[in-house]
Amino acid sequence: MIKIVVDAMGGDNSPSVNVSGAVKALNEIKNLNITLVGDESQIVPLLAKEKYDKTRLEVLHASEVISCNDKPTEAIKTKKDSSMSRAFELLKTDSDARALVSLGSTGALLAGTVLRVGRIKGVKRPAFCPILPTMRQGKTVGICDSGANVDCDSVYLQQFAVMGSLYLQKAYGVKNPKVALLNIGAEEEKGDALRKETYQLLKDTAAINFVGNMESRDLLSGDFDLVVCDGFSGNVLLKSTEGACLELMKLLKKSMLSSFKSKIGALLIKKKMYEIKDLMDYNNYGGAVLLGAAKTIVKGHGSSKAEAVYQCVKQAYNMEANNLCQAISEAITAATANNNQ
Amino acid sequence: MIKIVVDAMGGDNSPSVNVSGAVKALNEIKNLNITLVGDESQIVPLLAKEKYDKTRLEVLHASEVISCNDKPTEAIKTKKDSSMSRAFELLKTDSDARALVSLGSTGALLAGTVLRVGRIKGVKRPAFCPILPTMRQGKTVGICDSGANVDCDSVYLQQFAVMGSLYLQKAYGVKNPKVALLNIGAEEEKGDALRKETYQLLKDTAAINFVGNMESRDLLSGDFDLVVCDGFSGNVLLKSTEGACLELMKLLKKSMLSSFKSKIGALLIKKKMYEIKDLMDYNNYGGAVLLGAAKTIVKGHGSSKAEAVYQCVKQAYNMEANNLCQAISEAITAATANNNQ
Repeated sequence: MIKIVVDAMGGDNSPSVNVSGAVKALNEIKNLNITLVGDESQIVPLLAKEKYDKTRLEVLHASEVISCNDKPTEAIKTKKDSSMSRAFELLKTDSDARALVSLGSTGALLAGTVLRVGRIKGVKRPAFCPILPTMRQGKTVGICDSGANVDCDSVYLQQFAVMGSLYLQKAYGVKNPKVALLNIGAEEEKGDALRKETYQLLKDTAAINFVGNMESRDLLSGDFDLVVCDGFSGNVLLKSTEGACLELMKLLKKSMLSSFKSKIGALLIKKKMYEIKDLMDYNNYGGAVLLGAAKTIVKGHGSSKAEAVYQCVKQAYNMEANNLCQAISEAITAATANNNQ
Repeated sequence: MIKIVVDAMGGDNSPSVNVSGAVKALNEIKNLNITLVGDESQIVPLLAKEKYDKTRLEVLHASEVISCNDKPTEAIKTKKDSSMSRAFELLKTDSDARALVSLGSTGALLAGTVLRVGRIKGVKRPAFCPILPTMRQGKTVGICDSGANVDCDSVYLQQFAVMGSLYLQKAYGVKNPKVALLNIGAEEEKGDALRKETYQLLKDTAAINFVGNMESRDLLSGDFDLVVCDGFSGNVLLKSTEGACLELMKLLKKSMLSSFKSKIGALLIKKKMYEIKDLMDYNNYGGAVLLGAAKTIVKGHGSSKAEAVYQCVKQAYNMEANNLCQAISEAITAATANNNQ
């Protein structure tokens, strides 16, 4: 049995999407236990409407919620009866509790992980690794780090590469993931001091399939499985890509509704547009995992629907079922030994 | 009279687009002289087909071309008879030659500027500042630096802000441009050490209208006129935005042509789609200027058409006609004096 803790209060649509997403995962995966953490008076009535195996789900009461406006570290330390703090407490004290899924504050989740859960031995910094759809059918791409570490050195980036590569193999079944370094040109000598040093280190890292530099314009091409970067430029990459797609879709919609003729046209391509919207919908791709933490941590989008919560729980389950933390620990030890040779 | 040097050989469609774009600008702007630099045997026959005032256009022969595969600094130093090297030579020796427009290698243009033209007194680093369309009708946004300087300190970023802001005022008539700092969150305390230091410096810079941090997802919102960033993250921002828009438009096209019904729909919205394509077309927005160089340097897109070359020449003319270099020199001196108080 794998026990997963679900923060029932984080996110814009909590606790209803958190509860129904968690229950859906519970009903699908027989080898799963779930603890929902949050306000009982809200959670219990929602559960009453659902059908599920009651022996495999418990509720842990917490009266407070950490919001995105709270200062992360302070909130984890002072809002002791918040759903996220209680969830971390459970991870710390209950060895059976192996993973946490939350849609709450990214900063607080990072702070809680560092303060309460800790890192896998040998891992220098945990890193966020969200998965994005690409424009090639069925192909996704991971970005590691997408924002946990704004200041990085080359060994951090090497570890992001090793962890991200294992994650894609274990949680998504990607074989021999193509790992690229985010850079401002394709050639080996491009970039700043950090990129040049990292390039050489990645070339010598046996645990990964390093394919060289990637320019940001090629993120959605489907040619790469994992892009390695510092958290600052990774965040810029992730959010400008999301932002551009979103703004362009908005403009398209507005433009198509601006004349009678184009409205008719819009009706005829509606199905195709929904397919594209669906392809780009993060609800279908799970959350951003925090790789390198001693337990599995999955951060779902704040505006997630139940489907996304379900995907996050499944993702956390897959990671635990495939012993990702153990695999990362071994790979990091090997890479470090090789660096020191 | 303002004399502008046009590298006739740079770019994918040279020299035909370079020649016809330059001639179009010459015919429109009466106060303009142009020197086309490149292979006479190709340029002269193209000119023979055009109508223009022959007293205001000359051709300077150059037998070689610097390609994007050449090493920039080496190419400027050794390919002495290349169109770009000859163009820089002219800028250096002829005080009347005040600006250079090139579609050639970005690296070589940067190297040539540093080696042959030099910086405006007080400017620490020249920086690229391309202008992008936003999703709000008639609004554009500049990114400074988009890739000239991968390693930056806070004073560089302050200077990018001052130069970019003046550029938008002088070349595009933007009043009191809204200047934002690219960061991973909107709050003042966000980001790495560089961003925190720069934020404080920008707040105290009287010459600009600093409006705070901008997250990359908001680049195309139309809420900002100029985004200030180091060249590494600026390059990531620019290319991921361009890449995402391009990939999404490709996917839309493919998707709309995939069924009979959607093909009919596509026909009906064709006009609207072309409007959007037109809105996003860099051919309408001139080139990326290299701010802080002692003479005006404009880099057009390698795949520019004649219209884009025309826009680049007009842009260079506007910058010179409004004495941008002089204005930058004064503003940088004032900002530096204020920093040292």
